[in-house]
Amino acid sequence: MSVLVVGTVAFDSIETPFGSAERILGGSASYFALGASFFAPVRVVGVIGKDFPQDYLDLFTERKIDIAGIKREQGDTFHWRGRYHEDINQRDTIELHLNVLAGFVPDLPDNYRDAEYVFLGNIDPVMQMEVLNQIRRLKLVVCDTMDHWIRESQDELKKVLKRIEMLVINDSEARLLSGYDNIVKAARAILRMGPKIVLIKRGEYGVLQFSDSSVFATPAYPLEEVFDPTGAGDSFAGGLMGHLARSGDSSEGGLRRAIVYGSVVASFTVEDFGVKRLTDVSLPEIEERYLRFVQLTDFHS
Amino acid sequence: MSVLVVGTVAFDSIETPFGSAERILGGSASYFALGASFFAPVRVVGVIGKDFPQDYLDLFTERKIDIAGIKREQGDTFHWRGRYHEDINQRDTIELHLNVLAGFVPDLPDNYRDAEYVFLGNIDPVMQMEVLNQIRRLKLVVCDTMDHWIRESQDELKKVLKRIEMLVINDSEARLLSGYDNIVKAARAILRMGPKIVLIKRGEYGVLQFSDSSVFATPAYPLEEVFDPTGAGDSFAGGLMGHLARSGDSSEGGLRRAIVYGSVVASFTVEDFGVKRLTDVSLPEIEERYLRFVQLTDFHS
Repeated sequence: MSVLVVGTVAFDSIETPFGSAERILGGSASYFALGASFFAPVRVVGVIGKDFPQDYLDLFTERKIDIAGIKREQGDTFHWRGRYHEDINQRDTIELHLNVLAGFVPDLPDNYRDAEYVFLGNIDPVMQMEVLNQIRRLKLVVCDTMDHWIRESQDELKKVLKRIEMLVINDSEARLLSGYDNIVKAARAILRMGPKIVLIKRGEYGVLQFSDSSVFATPAYPLEEVFDPTGAGDSFAGGLMGHLARSGDSSEGGLRRAIVYGSVVASFTVEDFGVKRLTDVSLPEIEERYLRFVQLTDFHS
Repeated sequence: MSVLVVGTVAFDSIETPFGSAERILGGSASYFALGASFFAPVRVVGVIGKDFPQDYLDLFTERKIDIAGIKREQGDTFHWRGRYHEDINQRDTIELHLNVLAGFVPDLPDNYRDAEYVFLGNIDPVMQMEVLNQIRRLKLVVCDTMDHWIRESQDELKKVLKRIEMLVINDSEARLLSGYDNIVKAARAILRMGPKIVLIKRGEYGVLQFSDSSVFATPAYPLEEVFDPTGAGDSFAGGLMGHLARSGDSSEGGLRRAIVYGSVVASFTVEDFGVKRLTDVSLPEIEERYLRFVQLTDFHS
């Protein structure tokens, strides 16, 4: 089964306490696609400008990611500049240039329209809905969002929430969307907005998954070095959906294991700048760390 | 096997967003003792003033906690006044009166001196060392501390660290003691100070356990209502050591299960003000929540 992602394909300029990088490959669709590509074929829907280098597109095709859905437009590519604090969990957005992303209307290649596993990356909910409307047979739709859309486009976002299976969101966004400080109450309130499953990302503290019938909690993989947290959440979602598409197992247990695969992929992502670690890690390394994750959390044996 | 604890037996005055309470039973030894008492006999070493009510002592004896080691002195009982923020993970100390605790020299009843499971609660490291010196046969010594002792009595604390098996500490204290921001590096640095095991408490985010040969990570039990976080850490340690004393199983797996029991006990503690929930919960309820915890974290079935 293949996975379709719509989201940003971007330039990121990043400063962390450990170094900086200018105009490297970034964006939610990029991290998601690379994270998912270890497990399943991936198709990307997005937009780039005339300044977007072929080298970056080659990083996708080397991993057999289908980029027929990435449209090149006149104008410049979406560019984000961010700075991380000494406390690497905190960051500021220094610059944000939408460029060609402003006014982008997704138009899916015909062979994308039979997608079953769909990830609506963090973009305008209007674009997310447009993609949903173009797909003929949906099996699992997972959606991400951020504080900006919760504040500025909440009506549109809520329409999307009614049509998805799973919302992947971080804890502060869950609080903002629900109005509850307590994260359990926040998740229950979001479940009432439509999604059958709410997945709360807590960065270095792990993940909580809520549905009407169960709760799953898992820590993150502890790391001695976190170089650059950019893309952790999107590559987490990529690992999660890639594994789901590979296994075809959307049982409660299958979903939990997919969450652990997502956590493992994210743990590699943050070990180097930008997408670098995602382009040099191998599936056997991912599988090995999955087994370490099992040992890390096991208290039965 | 019985468990011995030395720590504070105190009055707490607490304000949270959900209510307030004046001069209720508090202190590290109190929470620890009640938390451990579900699993094993407990002996308490501490000091109270002439103002300490018999009712509070009765809460211990009703749970068959041995209070022969609680000395009553002229003067007032240790009193802490704290206020929790809207974000219940943050609190300020408003008042702190050491009273009879200042200058307290522990003097263990003779039948306490064969203790095997010893918890050195959060008090002056000089007092912790005094207790260690009075015990004839030690099997497992676990120690807690806080920022105040790390800042003001680090030399004394480091002497204690050389003589214990396990340090239980929260994440900000681990950073302060080690000088490392990254929690894995912090734990490794503390292991080099003496303890064979370092247990990092992260409140609602769970627990990390480090030794030279393994790492264990577990989330906290997610709660819809947290009324009062006071004593969560001490009752966690109580559940942990109580279960260890009950099971006699200090293998890696046994220790991990003890951590989960500690987490379960702490999850009850915070459901009501002060020690109230600890005095009305039953062992079957604790065992039931342990099984829920297994379901909460399982991704194998």
